[in-house]
Amino acid sequence: MKSKLIVLFFFFLVALTQAQVERIEPPFWWSAMHHDELQILCYGKGIAKYNVESKDITISDITKTENPNYLFITLDTKAVETGTVSIDFKENGSVVFSQPYQFKSRRANSAKRKGFDSSDVMYLIMPDRFANGNPENDSHKDTVEKADRSNPGGRHGGDIQGVIDHLDYLKDLGVTTLWSTPLLEDNEPTYSYHTYAQSDLYKIDPRYGTNEDYKRLASEMHKQDMKLVMDYVTNHWGSKHWMIQDLPTKDWIHQWPEGFRRSNYRMTTQFDNNASQIDSKGCMNGWFDTTMPDMNQSNPLLLTYITQNAIWWIEYADLDGFRVDTYSYNDKDGIAKWTKAIMDEYPNFNIVGEVWMHNQAQIAYWQKNSKIGAIDNYNSHLPSVMDFTLHDAITVLFNEDENSWDKGMIKAYDNFTNDFLYPDINNILLFAGNHDTNRINEIYQGDIDTYKMVMTLIFTTRGIPQIYYGDEIGMLGNRDKKGDGDIRRDFPGGWSGDAKNAFLSSAIKNGRTNDQEAFHAFTSKVLKWRKHAEVIHTGKLLQFIPFDNVYVYFRYNEEKSVMVIINNSLKDQKLDVTRFKEGIKSYSVGTDIITDSNIDITEDFSIPAKTSMILDLK
Amino acid sequence: MKSKLIVLFFFFLVALTQAQVERIEPPFWWSAMHHDELQILCYGKGIAKYNVESKDITISDITKTENPNYLFITLDTKAVETGTVSIDFKENGSVVFSQPYQFKSRRANSAKRKGFDSSDVMYLIMPDRFANGNPENDSHKDTVEKADRSNPGGRHGGDIQGVIDHLDYLKDLGVTTLWSTPLLEDNEPTYSYHTYAQSDLYKIDPRYGTNEDYKRLASEMHKQDMKLVMDYVTNHWGSKHWMIQDLPTKDWIHQWPEGFRRSNYRMTTQFDNNASQIDSKGCMNGWFDTTMPDMNQSNPLLLTYITQNAIWWIEYADLDGFRVDTYSYNDKDGIAKWTKAIMDEYPNFNIVGEVWMHNQAQIAYWQKNSKIGAIDNYNSHLPSVMDFTLHDAITVLFNEDENSWDKGMIKAYDNFTNDFLYPDINNILLFAGNHDTNRINEIYQGDIDTYKMVMTLIFTTRGIPQIYYGDEIGMLGNRDKKGDGDIRRDFPGGWSGDAKNAFLSSAIKNGRTNDQEAFHAFTSKVLKWRKHAEVIHTGKLLQFIPFDNVYVYFRYNEEKSVMVIINNSLKDQKLDVTRFKEGIKSYSVGTDIITDSNIDITEDFSIPAKTSMILDLK
Repeated sequence: MKSKLIVLFFFFLVALTQAQVERIEPPFWWSAMHHDELQILCYGKGIAKYNVESKDITISDITKTENPNYLFITLDTKAVETGTVSIDFKENGSVVFSQPYQFKSRRANSAKRKGFDSSDVMYLIMPDRFANGNPENDSHKDTVEKADRSNPGGRHGGDIQGVIDHLDYLKDLGVTTLWSTPLLEDNEPTYSYHTYAQSDLYKIDPRYGTNEDYKRLASEMHKQDMKLVMDYVTNHWGSKHWMIQDLPTKDWIHQWPEGFRRSNYRMTTQFDNNASQIDSKGCMNGWFDTTMPDMNQSNPLLLTYITQNAIWWIEYADLDGFRVDTYSYNDKDGIAKWTKAIMDEYPNFNIVGEVWMHNQAQIAYWQKNSKIGAIDNYNSHLPSVMDFTLHDAITVLFNEDENSWDKGMIKAYDNFTNDFLYPDINNILLFAGNHDTNRINEIYQGDIDTYKMVMTLIFTTRGIPQIYYGDEIGMLGNRDKKGDGDIRRDFPGGWSGDAKNAFLSSAIKNGRTNDQEAFHAFTSKVLKWRKHAEVIHTGKLLQFIPFDNVYVYFRYNEEKSVMVIINNSLKDQKLDVTRFKEGIKSYSVGTDIITDSNIDITEDFSIPAKTSMILDLK
Repeated sequence: MKSKLIVLFFFFLVALTQAQVERIEPPFWWSAMHHDELQILCYGKGIAKYNVESKDITISDITKTENPNYLFITLDTKAVETGTVSIDFKENGSVVFSQPYQFKSRRANSAKRKGFDSSDVMYLIMPDRFANGNPENDSHKDTVEKADRSNPGGRHGGDIQGVIDHLDYLKDLGVTTLWSTPLLEDNEPTYSYHTYAQSDLYKIDPRYGTNEDYKRLASEMHKQDMKLVMDYVTNHWGSKHWMIQDLPTKDWIHQWPEGFRRSNYRMTTQFDNNASQIDSKGCMNGWFDTTMPDMNQSNPLLLTYITQNAIWWIEYADLDGFRVDTYSYNDKDGIAKWTKAIMDEYPNFNIVGEVWMHNQAQIAYWQKNSKIGAIDNYNSHLPSVMDFTLHDAITVLFNEDENSWDKGMIKAYDNFTNDFLYPDINNILLFAGNHDTNRINEIYQGDIDTYKMVMTLIFTTRGIPQIYYGDEIGMLGNRDKKGDGDIRRDFPGGWSGDAKNAFLSSAIKNGRTNDQEAFHAFTSKVLKWRKHAEVIHTGKLLQFIPFDNVYVYFRYNEEKSVMVIINNSLKDQKLDVTRFKEGIKSYSVGTDIITDSNIDITEDFSIPAKTSMILDLK
């Protein structure tokens, strides 16, 4: 079957060359999809001059743009079966060439695929900086920027094979889901390693591997019961994208009279009913950066293009979720249609959007069926958002130890008082850092006690925890002072020849240092417990006002209760158990899953300074 | 007529004494009220032993409590006419005594009275500290605390007559509405001057004057087209209240096993769906202070008592609004019923609640028909809330001059980006300070340029401006360092013998200093203009992202546009008028109502450092 497909593929290539079709996207599709129309983009010099017909399939629409090199053909796929159809390109009544187009059969239960959820723990990597599994693709003839590991902003050679090689490490850490920053081709001459300026939306960057490699990554992860999340960028493409070089329509991207206008980044203009138009457009239509033309999702051809592209990757690579970059910078209505189309196709899928705001109501606005969005007649259909306000709190509160109205653990407590604003409180991503923030261990100067408190919170409160690669070994990095490269350092041991290999236990020569091992052991221990602690995945949260910088909360359901205590003060603190009766109920013993010790919770007990406990109640 | 009423009153007194009814509340009522039931509280030693009947009026309910000294009689007032009815108190089938009860006739259009709104400017005074119109009532035999003007926390002698004496001053300042902190009797031995620990809800504190004086204040204000707002305290009474001394029911107030428990003040527990019960109750049922027992608004007898009392004052004194103290500390459902009952009685009335929170969604939660409240199935029915987040911003932003993401004028701009969260954006109280905050001129060290910028914002953005007495003459006061007394200093000239009299112009001997005059002149000038600027009262707001610490916004309707510019930077700034085209439209000239100068707005123009302009566009 595979060889037959390959033969077919070469046939296509030959046909394409003969027929002056340089590109056809999506390159193939599937039968029996929920949405029963398919928009095929055909690109070739002067291709718009042809009339298009097919004896095999109903063509419901043909759209030509001001650029004669494009033809958008919409097929009615209701009745289409697995196999190849032929589309005829005619001139003066005669067929000049015919274009075969393939419909594949879907995986069993593809439509019902279950996305990541609060039973998962997500691990975020930057693939260029994680592990170099294939040194031969560090540089590639098809892409301009070559590897230079000595340059903090250059390409270091990490790739998909490197990730596949370390799935055991992730599994052992207790991670269940991988979010990799983008992997599609980014052919910018510099800073291509971050890969948010993509030049081909149907192709894995050759320096990371091939489309087949990416599919293999998903497949290997699924074998280990792990999930793969793609970082999808709807808001902008790279300046080197072939379509940007020869735009189908002028309004394919947001154009500015002066050529480039940077976004004002004021996402609040998306709902501010006092906002001026110049500011609203300046946010939504301004460019994220000079190399990133801002896509116009209100153009229906573009919107369909990126919708199909997203679905194509889910179906092709067998994905378990998307993380959508700069979600709230998109055209509001366009991105809602994009999100809804994907969720209509895969109702159990999950998509988390980057809505980087500092106010719970503003973040909650963007979650599906938000009552706050509804005030503005808006529904994004986005299932999941990120808890940026918790992140704001986490990055300062552990340095605070005053008995103040709003400092220290109060900041965490306060965040959760606004939970009622979110329509789906379990589907919120929790994180202490990511590829755009200072590293959490840098903020707290590598202090493992603080790391444990931070991660206790992230791992046990409501929502989906996310770890940024290297946090689990105490990696440092200061974005403010040293730039992006510093928070995206290479994972030690990811490159052959690395002096130390932090993928390996401290018991192994050149493995983790003792310090790294301490971070890792804590992380792994709690995550492995969390994996089977359903009460943490879906239980309710019950919280108590912190006093003396001690935060106590419970996660509970009808079967189980877990009591979490975070003592962020510089002193040992005694807990008055009568105050927590509503959570303790008739339980009498708490087993601290961090230390394995048992605590008598029928009597007041102490918790040491700068310590957390996760008590499994019995 | 008046003498007839007085005779009647003495007749009542005699009857009461004979009949062992020590108190009857409300002391009288009105016919033709919207709500057609009236709960009369009868208090007297052992009064509960009587059976109660009436030949004149239908008694729909008689409630006795565990305290035999109380009887709650509910009358059906549907058919009641103006005049006096008699209620018989019987024992063993015989009438022991009869109690007359009077129903008065209402003022014409009483039910349709129009409350304060965004066409108004509210002036907040603490009556003890404003002006002493009647030195003879500075101390009074019926109340414990005597005058001591040398004590910052003592009584200074200000009174209602003092306010009446200075209505011309307020009128001339451009103020249209007066909010006085509470005036009802507060018989605490210390700190009674703030009067939030009230001991009799049907009686003006004799050190302020009489009930008649209060009614006269309203009447005098109405003659000058001004409005009177009462500060109503639903949440707590004073420890010396006669009913607190002999509780009708144990649950009339929130009782704690230890006698007193201070509120935890965490108002977020009112909607936090993760909150523990101990914390929710600790906020709502905890006491505001030792001298302020926390009222239980879930007790229907108490709820009716305070509802009727509030209505009694509106009807008796002819009020134009309430300011409700500590609104969000009350029993949520109880306070919503209280508010709705008043608004049902007076549909055009206005009530502003003190909801001292630091997040727009949390404040908006409490406004009538809030979509955020609705998430929590809550509707307070409260028409107006206070813009505490704007206050938070105002008290810091004018000291900030960095080009930062969230500092300086951006803080004001940001506040308004959340306006969509409020169901009624014009009905929001705007203030730079009140009797519980540091004084605005203290924060900015008496700098008049800053004062002008602050007040330009307060006076011209959406909502209802409120001034704290003395701000208009640059009064200072530091709560953090010197306590409440320091932000509640006596208004200079309010006491005969004061060396200076700031009620008088600087042109008059011992009148305002030149500095005070500058504050006053600015305030008066802008307010007098505002009074007739309908576009400021109800026009839409159009705002632009501040750059270089310059905030530009417009208020506009179909007829008029006003352009406001606040340059908070330390440099003169040039305005690119093309950027503001959406607001400038085809207008060509802006008359700065502060300086009376005309500005050509068809070309870029400059605004000096630390200056604001209010341009009336033509």
